[in-house]
Amino acid sequence: MSIDNRQMWQELGIDLERHDVLLSALLPIYQEIYLSQQNRPEGMGFFDFVVGDIHGIRVRELRQHAIDGGKVVATYCVFVPEEIVLAADAIQVGLCAGTQFSVTIAEKVLPRNTCALIKSSFGFKLGRICPYVQTSHLVVGETTCDGKKKMFEILSEHQPVYVMEVPNKKTESSRQLWLDEVRAFKEVIEKLTGNEITADKLSQATKKVNDRRRALKRLYELRKANPVPISGKDALLVTQVSFYDDVDRATQQINALCDEIEARVSQGIGVFPGNAPKILVSGSPMAIPNWKLHHILETAGAAVVCEETCTGTRLFSELVPETDGNLDEQIKAIADRYMRINCACFTPNEKRLDDIVRLAKEYQVDGVVHYNLQFCHTYANEAVLVERTLDEAGIPLLRIETDYADEDTGQLRTRVDAFLEMIRG
Amino acid sequence: MSIDNRQMWQELGIDLERHDVLLSALLPIYQEIYLSQQNRPEGMGFFDFVVGDIHGIRVRELRQHAIDGGKVVATYCVFVPEEIVLAADAIQVGLCAGTQFSVTIAEKVLPRNTCALIKSSFGFKLGRICPYVQTSHLVVGETTCDGKKKMFEILSEHQPVYVMEVPNKKTESSRQLWLDEVRAFKEVIEKLTGNEITADKLSQATKKVNDRRRALKRLYELRKANPVPISGKDALLVTQVSFYDDVDRATQQINALCDEIEARVSQGIGVFPGNAPKILVSGSPMAIPNWKLHHILETAGAAVVCEETCTGTRLFSELVPETDGNLDEQIKAIADRYMRINCACFTPNEKRLDDIVRLAKEYQVDGVVHYNLQFCHTYANEAVLVERTLDEAGIPLLRIETDYADEDTGQLRTRVDAFLEMIRG
Repeated sequence: MSIDNRQMWQELGIDLERHDVLLSALLPIYQEIYLSQQNRPEGMGFFDFVVGDIHGIRVRELRQHAIDGGKVVATYCVFVPEEIVLAADAIQVGLCAGTQFSVTIAEKVLPRNTCALIKSSFGFKLGRICPYVQTSHLVVGETTCDGKKKMFEILSEHQPVYVMEVPNKKTESSRQLWLDEVRAFKEVIEKLTGNEITADKLSQATKKVNDRRRALKRLYELRKANPVPISGKDALLVTQVSFYDDVDRATQQINALCDEIEARVSQGIGVFPGNAPKILVSGSPMAIPNWKLHHILETAGAAVVCEETCTGTRLFSELVPETDGNLDEQIKAIADRYMRINCACFTPNEKRLDDIVRLAKEYQVDGVVHYNLQFCHTYANEAVLVERTLDEAGIPLLRIETDYADEDTGQLRTRVDAFLEMIRG
Repeated sequence: MSIDNRQMWQELGIDLERHDVLLSALLPIYQEIYLSQQNRPEGMGFFDFVVGDIHGIRVRELRQHAIDGGKVVATYCVFVPEEIVLAADAIQVGLCAGTQFSVTIAEKVLPRNTCALIKSSFGFKLGRICPYVQTSHLVVGETTCDGKKKMFEILSEHQPVYVMEVPNKKTESSRQLWLDEVRAFKEVIEKLTGNEITADKLSQATKKVNDRRRALKRLYELRKANPVPISGKDALLVTQVSFYDDVDRATQQINALCDEIEARVSQGIGVFPGNAPKILVSGSPMAIPNWKLHHILETAGAAVVCEETCTGTRLFSELVPETDGNLDEQIKAIADRYMRINCACFTPNEKRLDDIVRLAKEYQVDGVVHYNLQFCHTYANEAVLVERTLDEAGIPLLRIETDYADEDTGQLRTRVDAFLEMIRG
């Protein structure tokens, strides 16, 4: 199997030497951060398996899909409408963007003052260490931040890239622009795949993606239980994997996990001591394998019960209305759904402040940790408003700005300990 | 006069103590950077006077305009259509954003990883040291970068702010969005002023603004002469002052300066030794009193002959077609003109690369210095493409990333000296 993988990676143009370093570093980290956890749901076994073979089976599936004439569309952001990609019998896969290893490669080209997520994703391509991007026929970017918007121009010298324009405001004109962009994207995907997107196909694809959203919603609902039935680290891994696993299999595995967790809840089984402070994490996305903050929080005795992030609620909380209506009505419903995401790229973005307060109450958290990737201007500025809003609501807040490096781990542990101490009173 | 000024500043809510520190620091710097220059055109006397009384006469004019029932609109960016503001008998004034002094004030609120221009402008309001923003009735922001886009949300807690959405791409849909934004801006300004913008008023205002653009074009054309008839520092000051001086007076003064420079050119009078390397500066805007890079370059023996920046060619190189046509045709012509600005906020933005090469040739420069304000993602990423483009064109490039602080001046001088040495061969 491993030999087959190496041959596949070679055929994909992977830098095997570098790639060996990457994988040999990942598995001990996973061992330490994940497998060391006590009393995990058995359903996490599937996700452990996925990470254990992270560049194996799934890449093989994508490659087989390509060999059979299908197309693979790689993305970085929750704004790219997967419904449209699936409706053209293409596969959408979220790209690797969570390792410090690839950051150092990217810094040979990109400005150092760029967020780790952007540098990491670019480094995966530049260093030829990501079989997902190597397998993909088109990278679909968006304009949700300056760093990504301009990085895609440089990336396009290495890989076919198409950029969707996400507007800056949510006015009628901005919504019209986004609707035009979604319509244009449909044509781009039809041209890429040679497949026509019919009302029927789009309606089926929409249901598929909604089913995964419903499964993730179900998982998050279960995290409200006392005692907390699943760790924040495990829940985060589930959303991370759902970005690149087969949509039906992900839905099925998440629901199987939820069945088990429901039983745990009814039996009062938890994974943290009853007095563990409950934390809502809000802010920048955490791409696999970025588990840094969750690991620090949960090894410090906290229980992360919700993420108001693009690798959390922003990924699944809004559904697309399912209609068998005509194609354009469905496209409009899809465009409208994505414009309901309260991303910091929009100005103003007060609804995100409302979301954070609402989630903090719904999940009965003891505090919020605002997570900001260094050099991410939109979330860093919004953190000023988040701080004021939570202060007015009387909800404790810890503002963290960090990257993928380990240098600040000790300092972060100290600040997290002090925060939890303060919460515990 | 000075006593009158102090009373006016007090009435405007200026923090007099802080403001004294600011002004007392500015004048010696101006003495050192500007008045120390040899053989300057006499026409610069007007601009010296403007700086010498920077928060005096002009503020008094704006205040009188307000007392007479007029409105003052403050801006940060070349994308806000001044034609529309003038057509409603309002005055548009570019805001102070070029001092390190106000940066330190802003850092109490804004993320430190924000470009100096944004921090400086915010600090002027937070610290109550800018009589222009104190005099203004509305601040008009835009979405040209993440930092400003989100800063305006925080600024709006201190001052009425309206944000125009500048799109990210230049597709037909994006252009339609911008046209809608310009139309909406017209309504905002009509509501603010209570004055209707008629075709006639807009046509007159367009001519006024075009006349200033033509005067600046004329000044820049004269900078192509050998020997170079005016320093880059002086030319930069002229564009900086044109952001907030009365449009007709600015046009008249720039043209008077050009008359004098034309005579100099015909007499072969220059301000640099004949062998001074000619430099094109390209990149981030330089808000008054940010003269750091030009001073370093010209005291090192270079002659800055052109700026491909928002305080340079991007401010004036495109004219609005002058028609007495109907109002909406004029609005469309205005919207179209602003979409021709090749700002790094757009993706892709290849036309800016073409502009840099074209200007380098037109001005027969010996090298280009790419100026990037630290933490400005759009220009920092575009610098990667600028470097490649100039390398292919065989034009020497020096990439500078800096801020408003003095700490790196020595290091910059060393790098500039090495660059000029290399150019001189």
